[in-house]
Amino acid sequence: MAEIDQLIANNEGFAASLPDKHLDVQPSRRLAIVTCMDSRLDVFAALGLDGGEAHVLRNAGGVITDDVIRSLAVSQRRLGTREVMLIHHTDCGMQKLTDDGFRSELQEEAGIAPAFAIESFTDVEADVRQSILRVRRSAFLPHRDLVRGFVYDVDSHRLREVEAGAET
Amino acid sequence: MAEIDQLIANNEGFAASLPDKHLDVQPSRRLAIVTCMDSRLDVFAALGLDGGEAHVLRNAGGVITDDVIRSLAVSQRRLGTREVMLIHHTDCGMQKLTDDGFRSELQEEAGIAPAFAIESFTDVEADVRQSILRVRRSAFLPHRDLVRGFVYDVDSHRLREVEAGAET
Repeated sequence: MAEIDQLIANNEGFAASLPDKHLDVQPSRRLAIVTCMDSRLDVFAALGLDGGEAHVLRNAGGVITDDVIRSLAVSQRRLGTREVMLIHHTDCGMQKLTDDGFRSELQEEAGIAPAFAIESFTDVEADVRQSILRVRRSAFLPHRDLVRGFVYDVDSHRLREVEAGAET
Repeated sequence: MAEIDQLIANNEGFAASLPDKHLDVQPSRRLAIVTCMDSRLDVFAALGLDGGEAHVLRNAGGVITDDVIRSLAVSQRRLGTREVMLIHHTDCGMQKLTDDGFRSELQEEAGIAPAFAIESFTDVEADVRQSILRVRRSAFLPHRDLVRGFVYDVDSHRLREVEAGAET
């Protein structure tokens, strides 16, 4: 596991370069950011975040799943966040597969099919709007009005906002 | 949404400071990192990661849920990752609630109880070991041997490895 060993060594240098400091568990910007696991998006750098400011949730696609609702419910109800910022991105791996195809692949190799959606998508802006709607309609979240969606361009490093559109 | 507006402005400065550059969608370190949404953990800085190197998955607690298995399955099967690095941390919000208590709170306020586990925990090292086991036992992941678990100290910024222990 040579890669993990390198990151451990990097962390030793990082920790040694900083003084010990305690920040509160509640994010000072009262903000949660939901985005993709993609390796090209350094959320803190790209948004100018400092430690202690915002929750950062990431999965394949940056889609709103039950696990994200679980996390946002804890974030809002126990840790004081109110705004939600959703960020999808260009050249996403989730645009390069289909739910049917990937489920079949899993079933062929594992013998069993997953009991969860794969959450593939084709139109990144439509999927941002879908994610906005899922936040707005979750009964478990007390703060559902302050949600905005974006697409991050992994080549230009720039955010572009997606209009939520009328609810259907 | 004053906080999101500030981050948009920060991003404009960030994007303007960098040349356009295309990196491959497949992480060069062939590594996926699973950690908590906690605002005090800047994963890229704390591990010395550059863009394009590793997938970063984050939820409440950094626990292995179905959504993380979904994401890791895409990461390993379509985007070439092999190693998995699990990072929990000190002073976690998920240690400050219980599944029973939070489910009751959700049911009282929303009228319905969630159909998913809250994934609270008390012993952070035991929960890291639980997460390691969940990766090792997932039929959907082709690469389950190269998984290691850590606790990040949010005050000292330092990683400490958790021995996986014998499988039970």
